[in-house]
Amino acid sequence: MENQKQEEEEQIVTPWEVTAEKGGKIDYDKLIDKFGCQRLDQSLVDRVARLTARPPHVFLRRGVFFAHRDFNDVLDAYERGEKFYLYTGRGPSSEALHLGHLVPFMFTKYLQDAFKVPLVIQLTDDEKCMWKNLTVEESQRLARENAKDIIACGFDVSRTFIFSDFDYVGGSFYKNMVKIAKCVTYNKVVGIFGFSGEDHIGKVSFPPVQAAPSFPSSFPHLFSGKDSLRCLIPCAIDQDPYFRMTRDVAPRIGYHKPALIESSFFPALQGETGKMSASDPNSAIYVTDSAKDIKNKVNRYAFSGGQDSIENHRKYGANLEVDIPIKYLGFFLEDDAELEHIRTEYGAGRMLTGEVKKRLIEVLTELVERHRRARAAVTDEMVDAFMAVRPLPNMFS
Amino acid sequence: MENQKQEEEEQIVTPWEVTAEKGGKIDYDKLIDKFGCQRLDQSLVDRVARLTARPPHVFLRRGVFFAHRDFNDVLDAYERGEKFYLYTGRGPSSEALHLGHLVPFMFTKYLQDAFKVPLVIQLTDDEKCMWKNLTVEESQRLARENAKDIIACGFDVSRTFIFSDFDYVGGSFYKNMVKIAKCVTYNKVVGIFGFSGEDHIGKVSFPPVQAAPSFPSSFPHLFSGKDSLRCLIPCAIDQDPYFRMTRDVAPRIGYHKPALIESSFFPALQGETGKMSASDPNSAIYVTDSAKDIKNKVNRYAFSGGQDSIENHRKYGANLEVDIPIKYLGFFLEDDAELEHIRTEYGAGRMLTGEVKKRLIEVLTELVERHRRARAAVTDEMVDAFMAVRPLPNMFS
Repeated sequence: MENQKQEEEEQIVTPWEVTAEKGGKIDYDKLIDKFGCQRLDQSLVDRVARLTARPPHVFLRRGVFFAHRDFNDVLDAYERGEKFYLYTGRGPSSEALHLGHLVPFMFTKYLQDAFKVPLVIQLTDDEKCMWKNLTVEESQRLARENAKDIIACGFDVSRTFIFSDFDYVGGSFYKNMVKIAKCVTYNKVVGIFGFSGEDHIGKVSFPPVQAAPSFPSSFPHLFSGKDSLRCLIPCAIDQDPYFRMTRDVAPRIGYHKPALIESSFFPALQGETGKMSASDPNSAIYVTDSAKDIKNKVNRYAFSGGQDSIENHRKYGANLEVDIPIKYLGFFLEDDAELEHIRTEYGAGRMLTGEVKKRLIEVLTELVERHRRARAAVTDEMVDAFMAVRPLPNMFS
Repeated sequence: MENQKQEEEEQIVTPWEVTAEKGGKIDYDKLIDKFGCQRLDQSLVDRVARLTARPPHVFLRRGVFFAHRDFNDVLDAYERGEKFYLYTGRGPSSEALHLGHLVPFMFTKYLQDAFKVPLVIQLTDDEKCMWKNLTVEESQRLARENAKDIIACGFDVSRTFIFSDFDYVGGSFYKNMVKIAKCVTYNKVVGIFGFSGEDHIGKVSFPPVQAAPSFPSSFPHLFSGKDSLRCLIPCAIDQDPYFRMTRDVAPRIGYHKPALIESSFFPALQGETGKMSASDPNSAIYVTDSAKDIKNKVNRYAFSGGQDSIENHRKYGANLEVDIPIKYLGFFLEDDAELEHIRTEYGAGRMLTGEVKKRLIEVLTELVERHRRARAAVTDEMVDAFMAVRPLPNMFS
């Protein structure tokens, strides 16, 4: 009961659960305070633009990536001519990705292109096998299917290594797992992740697996002799607990702390109270959805901030703070001027929900169509190439 | 205090601690009851002799290996023409092995020769890195040094695979680790191994590493397509907790339970109250000891059951139950008739401690000399051959 009461009162953000305070939205300011990360402010966005000589990504200039840890240090080093590498990942628990899943990958692709740095992508098939009770074979199959969606985001094969834990754990990677595990007590992981005594030991063993890619020596085929290379991790903020742990451990085993750049959650169609739910297909747009699915889902399920009658809407305008079509356009409509125009007109009641949804349907249909075409072009040979343990030919150029 | 009281009252046998009841000897009958294993009785010894058409090993006919789990089932299958494989191991925490360390390897060599079966030997360098706070590199170095001592016991390279966890964990082995970890709760490992919340998670993660070699699919280069091959584990009984856990898990993940054949502990020179202590070099004979060291250690430290004066000794005879020279001769003097003769004469007071110690010094010096010569002949190429991940050419013939 104690626990339940707490759940009702406090927002919960862990790698496995994202729940806002009762009926409300995730309070990201509170999360920054609680986790102890830093806000990604405008001066940092401007600095990225200057250093990369290109406009900052939509997700950066619109605050989708809103928090960080030591991103400034990475940029300081970059400015001195020191490169870094990117690390992100995915737990392959479902066949098809939804738009929320694409967010870190779209952003990571931008970072890779802008900074011209290598990237490692971890597919935690072992995690999903343990948490979702999938067989090893099914987890591995999903990892490979998900790899195709990830590759479809446009990563540069000459700078990108995608690996599944079941394939890659071992050697230097396993040595780092052991070094990390030695530095973390059971009480500590209980405090960070909330495990109970009835949880299986696979869960307790897993955090070092997700921590290990933060250290370049886990990839001797890529970073041999580059133990001081910095790591930057773009991820959703629910992954922060893993990397708080990793950052605690890093100096004790002689490595740099990984830097983080963290996003808010992509909201469900039904409203911004958490992440999308894998168990409700109508809560999200999937990259496998047809144009008809998208039209149907947006029109039927996308929570509207518009008023209940046209009269009231013309009079009061839409509540943009809760309007999902506006939120989604904020992620995927690249044209700042058009977005601003829609916000103004819709907020003033001159544009109706139906019109905004129509524009969103166009944007999403194009995005999903583009993804589908790109994914269809991903061959097994390409997957093998991304997942091959080999030096990256074009790593720092 | 509660805990301390318990320690004083009960014998403790875990993979990391062996303590007899206050001042006494390990009570092996109690251990069999507590662990729930079976006594290895004379009929089973006779059966081994019959099936292998050779006299049973000294360690078998003198009860050094005194307990088992499902050894009968392995022999049933063997009699039907089904082979099995042997699995044993060592935690490489020290440079040189002592005689107690050799016991399982000498016995395993006999089993390999007698049954003509393949053998896997796990060097748990990861465990020692975590428990003894050694560096990865030092653990790996010790593993390789220990491998030389193991090879010196005479194993057949065409039937033996020696691996270090840091080298070999990954692939199918890691998949089995994950499958095992999924089936064991934290509460369960606390119950079996006595971990506390302040122990690091490396300790909690380790039991599946020691469990995995019990399943043939952990060695696809050896046993591909032979998932139903049985495994027999010769070990000291302090390792039983790992394999109780493994046997619980086995049917849940579709494998045979491994069978065990378990030894008592090789006593310290100072007396039979537990295992030898790595921290006191005078508690054990090491394979690196010179003839002079051996003579000195036996004469000075080997606990004698002889009486305090020659007169009393002639009158009452030696107490063979506590006499270490007699115990050691029981392990290493192969001639049954001579051992019986010494026991009779010494027990009756007609032989003096000095005479028994003299014979023991001869036996141990010869054993250690033979080991030293064998170890000196072990080349790096031989170590590489034993540790290479390759099919075994002579596995079941």
